[in-house]
Amino acid sequence: MLEKVIEQINERNAEAMRQAEQHLDQLTKPPGSLGKLELLTIQLAGITGDNQTTFSDKRIVLMAADHGVAKEGVSAFPQEVTEQMVYNFLRGGAAINVIAKQTGAQVVCVDIGVAADFGDTAGLVHKKVAYGSNNMRREPALSREQARQALLVGIELAFELIADGADLLATGEMGIANTTTSSAVLVALTGAPVMETVGQGTGVTTEGIAHKARVIEESIALHQPNPQDVYDTLHKVGGLELCGLAGLILGAASKSVPIVIDGFISTVAALCAARICPNTKQYMIASHRSAEPGHDLALSELGLSPIIDGQMRLGEGTGAALLFPMIDSIQAIMREMATFASAGVSGKEATSDG
Amino acid sequence: MLEKVIEQINERNAEAMRQAEQHLDQLTKPPGSLGKLELLTIQLAGITGDNQTTFSDKRIVLMAADHGVAKEGVSAFPQEVTEQMVYNFLRGGAAINVIAKQTGAQVVCVDIGVAADFGDTAGLVHKKVAYGSNNMRREPALSREQARQALLVGIELAFELIADGADLLATGEMGIANTTTSSAVLVALTGAPVMETVGQGTGVTTEGIAHKARVIEESIALHQPNPQDVYDTLHKVGGLELCGLAGLILGAASKSVPIVIDGFISTVAALCAARICPNTKQYMIASHRSAEPGHDLALSELGLSPIIDGQMRLGEGTGAALLFPMIDSIQAIMREMATFASAGVSGKEATSDG
Repeated sequence: MLEKVIEQINERNAEAMRQAEQHLDQLTKPPGSLGKLELLTIQLAGITGDNQTTFSDKRIVLMAADHGVAKEGVSAFPQEVTEQMVYNFLRGGAAINVIAKQTGAQVVCVDIGVAADFGDTAGLVHKKVAYGSNNMRREPALSREQARQALLVGIELAFELIADGADLLATGEMGIANTTTSSAVLVALTGAPVMETVGQGTGVTTEGIAHKARVIEESIALHQPNPQDVYDTLHKVGGLELCGLAGLILGAASKSVPIVIDGFISTVAALCAARICPNTKQYMIASHRSAEPGHDLALSELGLSPIIDGQMRLGEGTGAALLFPMIDSIQAIMREMATFASAGVSGKEATSDG
Repeated sequence: MLEKVIEQINERNAEAMRQAEQHLDQLTKPPGSLGKLELLTIQLAGITGDNQTTFSDKRIVLMAADHGVAKEGVSAFPQEVTEQMVYNFLRGGAAINVIAKQTGAQVVCVDIGVAADFGDTAGLVHKKVAYGSNNMRREPALSREQARQALLVGIELAFELIADGADLLATGEMGIANTTTSSAVLVALTGAPVMETVGQGTGVTTEGIAHKARVIEESIALHQPNPQDVYDTLHKVGGLELCGLAGLILGAASKSVPIVIDGFISTVAALCAARICPNTKQYMIASHRSAEPGHDLALSELGLSPIIDGQMRLGEGTGAALLFPMIDSIQAIMREMATFASAGVSGKEATSDG
């Protein structure tokens, strides 16, 4: 199945991108003056094949999972917070619920690996692969088969949501200790110095950051993940939501649906997807630059330049959802703004030296 | 009148800010994890005295004026574009109209000094102080009295809009050649090297940028504006929309109404307001970091850190309006998000080292 999905991830529609660029330059504004928003709408045209798409069914896929490495005291919060927050998402009380409501989007909350039994709790998408991962400092976080299974969950979920009408997807996650696993995956895949990838996460102290870094170093030393093999890395030092989000991104790209990438953890998942299939990058939209130091590195590995610079570090898809109104605005500009000709506005002077 | 206005610009409400901060830390998210949005809502609480204000009447005040220095060929567009764009704003065809509609805000288009006669054109706010400024390379751009008059126009307009129900104001502008006058004011007030403040504006070439810099240097050398005297600077090398926006900001601050600052030109106007009354800074909300190189300097002079990093350089208030949905989201978070207690989520571990 994965091979078929990768085969379907094509180059973007170059003709649609050219038309979008031409249209932008006819609008009553200096050429290029909407900066990154112009690049964004050109990208969206390349993905959808249409330069005036209205995205009216946006869904934030929030994957929740637990991490055995939480036992090492790498988070400022206890592990049970993952489960408690899932109930909070379902009741609409979390930050992502409020932002999604404000921005006209839906939150799709997925249990891909929480260490708790939700029974048949309504509203939750039940895709549990395991009751959390193992403690990577002692043993591989997942089996290779579990990593593969979680990736397929993400791909299939993308297909289901798109079949159900979603025209724009975004990544989100919840999982106590998942900045630690994300840093580990980033270090394993890029060879970056551990300390450049480790931040305060949910709010650890300077001492706590040094401890996180030691745990990551020891885990990588123990398992020696192969940087050329994403599965090897994901199963040894990754997590279930990382695998699931990588799959979601691959699935969206294969159906030519744009996918908005949230913060650090989501961007590491995006890097995994891009290592599996580099063309996937063309479908990714960076939303915000977070306060996590490893985020910059992951973004530059992907060649992505986010529009929001809010020093946020909340996850859940909150940064991605904050980008939605900007996507709506630039798409409305493509549909509604006057052209130099229609408004009777003089264009740029061909002869001007300034 | 100005003295009375300045007297009314107070410190923010410290108790409301403390309460906002406390409330944020009870919400189900790591403390501080919404980054700049948390600082923003604390600031808004300090301005309004209430930590859960809904801003339901946002107005973007777009001041249009012409600049005699346009004769020096400092813009990529001819001067008549200022007039043509005013009609475009009134018909709803410009970028700011589309973004305002998307974000639920109103555009207030003001003729404070366009070099054209609009008669009694409907929808336009008629506050013309002069038919454009003079060419600062040859003579003072404005008389001292005109600069003062334009500033009072801005103050009075703020009062009128607030009396009419506006609860959040934003700055916008249109005026061919106004990046040149803004750079001149910034250089005059800060002593910064001219080349660090000059950018491509509407799209001039590298050669055009060097030409802009020469025109600014010559204008400053001719008039020797006094950096300690904002009026001296504004009338010699400024413009009518710069004066008007500085007044608008002073007026908003004196009525305890937050004011969102757009890009480079707006931020230079904000710097003028802050030089007249430093407390005004507390009422300013930075929206975006533009592609104009002088913007960073003006922002850091004011101690402002914008949330959007879009490499935009369009003006009109477009960057400010793009911030509105984020303001709505953080205010909704203050009103609607669950607390640790209400959601039954465990708090940060007091004993955790990480």
